[in-house]
Amino acid sequence: MTSLAPVLDALDAGLDASIARLADLVRIPSISTDPAYAAECRRAAEWLVADLKTIGFAASVRDTPGHPMVVAHHDGPAGSPHVLFYGHYDVQPVDPLELWHDDPFDMKVKEVAPGHKVLTGRGTADDKGQLMTFVEACRAYKQAHGALPCRVTILFEGEEESGSPSLKPFLEANAKELKADFALVCDTGMWDRDTPAISTALRGLVGEEVIIRAADRDLHSGEFGGAAANPVRVLAKVLAAVHDDDGRITIPDFYDGVEETPSQILKQWEGLGLTAEEFLGEVGLSVPAGEKGRSVLELVWARPTAEFNGISGGYTGKGFKTVIAAEAFAKVSFRLVHKQDPAKIREAFRAFVRERIPADCTVEFQPHGGSPAIQLSYDSPFLSKAKEALSDEWPKPAVMIAMGGSIPIVGDFQNLLGMESLLVGYGLSDDRIHSPNEKYELSSFHKGQRSWARILAALSR
Amino acid sequence: MTSLAPVLDALDAGLDASIARLADLVRIPSISTDPAYAAECRRAAEWLVADLKTIGFAASVRDTPGHPMVVAHHDGPAGSPHVLFYGHYDVQPVDPLELWHDDPFDMKVKEVAPGHKVLTGRGTADDKGQLMTFVEACRAYKQAHGALPCRVTILFEGEEESGSPSLKPFLEANAKELKADFALVCDTGMWDRDTPAISTALRGLVGEEVIIRAADRDLHSGEFGGAAANPVRVLAKVLAAVHDDDGRITIPDFYDGVEETPSQILKQWEGLGLTAEEFLGEVGLSVPAGEKGRSVLELVWARPTAEFNGISGGYTGKGFKTVIAAEAFAKVSFRLVHKQDPAKIREAFRAFVRERIPADCTVEFQPHGGSPAIQLSYDSPFLSKAKEALSDEWPKPAVMIAMGGSIPIVGDFQNLLGMESLLVGYGLSDDRIHSPNEKYELSSFHKGQRSWARILAALSR
Repeated sequence: MTSLAPVLDALDAGLDASIARLADLVRIPSISTDPAYAAECRRAAEWLVADLKTIGFAASVRDTPGHPMVVAHHDGPAGSPHVLFYGHYDVQPVDPLELWHDDPFDMKVKEVAPGHKVLTGRGTADDKGQLMTFVEACRAYKQAHGALPCRVTILFEGEEESGSPSLKPFLEANAKELKADFALVCDTGMWDRDTPAISTALRGLVGEEVIIRAADRDLHSGEFGGAAANPVRVLAKVLAAVHDDDGRITIPDFYDGVEETPSQILKQWEGLGLTAEEFLGEVGLSVPAGEKGRSVLELVWARPTAEFNGISGGYTGKGFKTVIAAEAFAKVSFRLVHKQDPAKIREAFRAFVRERIPADCTVEFQPHGGSPAIQLSYDSPFLSKAKEALSDEWPKPAVMIAMGGSIPIVGDFQNLLGMESLLVGYGLSDDRIHSPNEKYELSSFHKGQRSWARILAALSR
Repeated sequence: MTSLAPVLDALDAGLDASIARLADLVRIPSISTDPAYAAECRRAAEWLVADLKTIGFAASVRDTPGHPMVVAHHDGPAGSPHVLFYGHYDVQPVDPLELWHDDPFDMKVKEVAPGHKVLTGRGTADDKGQLMTFVEACRAYKQAHGALPCRVTILFEGEEESGSPSLKPFLEANAKELKADFALVCDTGMWDRDTPAISTALRGLVGEEVIIRAADRDLHSGEFGGAAANPVRVLAKVLAAVHDDDGRITIPDFYDGVEETPSQILKQWEGLGLTAEEFLGEVGLSVPAGEKGRSVLELVWARPTAEFNGISGGYTGKGFKTVIAAEAFAKVSFRLVHKQDPAKIREAFRAFVRERIPADCTVEFQPHGGSPAIQLSYDSPFLSKAKEALSDEWPKPAVMIAMGGSIPIVGDFQNLLGMESLLVGYGLSDDRIHSPNEKYELSSFHKGQRSWARILAALSR
């Protein structure tokens, strides 16, 4: 067993250098969903490999049919556990660019209030800043002790923001190399600025694009209006039918596999004291828009949703064009909970849409990823060790929460590698991930590094 | 009175030169709805003024707060009538550009079948080709006789495709100069390739943009989905409520002022022998999508509509983005008939939308033009003269029809200048106006010129 104090000291002393390294990584616009940025994704992977090698990892860029993986290995003392750390180096698109106050790829340290600093830019919170907290903890361990306290394998993917098409085949092909005692997954958040959290449930996701077509060309709405089918009108009718007036989803069998949350869990969540006004107030809202009669935490942690993430059809430029579009499309996603089956949800939605397509219109579907929800066990020994380590670092003790978002990797680790995950991260709900002006708290970055040092120490005891 | 034959001969001999002139005008991308093309609109106006001067018109570019007008005057014999010819030199946008087979601004003469030639490009049919048929008829008259058979004033506007904001003030300010015995308006079509038509009714138009806003930023649909209001969902609900299952518009008082078409008129239209399959078959459709139980001609000529001309919100690029948009918008237009009041329709729609905006969302409206429907008198003397002249030129006699589109100028001439309009044009329903690959029949261009020569002669008798 190695002493923790010099590791924490090394992290404190090296903070500025660690910020500079993160800025280098943020500078690479690794937008995975847009094929135009494929070379940048590879560059981000190469940057990480080079950095991990300086720490002493055996690291390499590993090709896939899509963006490459980064895999790195480092030994630990005999008898120590073996952990797999997962993060992703790809980021979301940055449009609309005009809403950013600064260049999204030129990270800045900004003092937003006296003593309160943030790191700005795309990927600072999701997920480059988060994954670097772990890398920096490893670097400090090597600096202080010349060794890591346990065996560490690192896996960084580059397709997390675009449905992870290469991930499953890669895990299957490299199962033996990647299997560890458990995984550490950092793509999650704190409960609040003072309170670290461990996530024990995550919603699943089904993404689907619906394209409705009618005439074989755009039509003049004077000449054909009233006679010709309008795909925007058909699409609006279809989407409007998805929710009833109480916010419940009307797709047949959609709620199959959804369980009611046990009352003691609901009570725990209630105990966190978060009102709908507080939760939604951060983004300028105040009234929950989901199923009636449920708390806002239950809505985002334990209830499924149907969301329309994008819609387009006809003339959308400046001014007006009296046109009836030849086609219109929507990007639709479903958040899943408990035992909802992604494949069944996708089929149920497609059947629901097809039933509503009138004569003269056709519909095409394009799938965009799917993963079931995750529910982790509350009684694993590493969960309690991590909880203690986190509680030592932060002003308030760690809490067990759930997550509204999806981290498909957690299901894949469970199903393909037989490995549970410990979900710890330092993001805050106002980090504006996926939006303009994404930021990461400097305290998340610094204390996040220290937290991983503590967790590695605790897990190795 | 002057002889018609040499005028027609001059038109036949000058056809190639007239095609070259039209190509010059089409080459100017005078897209009025997009501010980026303002200078091109002015260039088109200047081109027309220069051309009209070569014919002997006293022509000038007349500034407005928007795109300029072209006004030109030419004397006629004492005692001859005074006609005002109206057209517009602005054109629709050309997106999506990738669907065009040729450069939309590089007009080509294409033989699409043996002996069947078309002129391709944006504005060839709407309205540059049409207005040049009249200019060429005047040119040929001057060439053959050194004079016109009647007094002619020409008015070309440059904002017809963007709501004509400057038109009314210009007509009001120049009423004395522009008032004639009647107007000739060329922005209309033939019944079919062999049958010329005079339009006696036109639908009105109300354009409206609806912008719905919720959160103060785009949100991650995992973090906030199920709790936060989604503007795309709200917009879909609003638009879906506009039509009932029978295609009838549900906005309260929407049908105020709509009259049932007299049965003898419906019978005349029935006599034209056009089936829904034929009308819609041209554009790849077959089933009327408007109010149930009405013929396709009644739907487009005598019934009001609500059309969604454009919609956009959230992520619409390639791939997928799990975002809840901060805002979404739709461009909506209403075609009006009979005595429907544009201002009342606009207000009724806004009230209808406002009622459906939930807590946490706001709505903004942007008006985009409005004009009532037009019903012209069947018994004016110039109508019967024009019908006869047209019947002399084309294989089949002229028919009286209605129009689904709006030509606000006709109402303005009536209301502001106390002047009725004769609506004659040579477009065909497959000209793809407002769409990619717009074309104008070479026969429309050539026989259209000859038709105007005949009409001018007939009106002057």
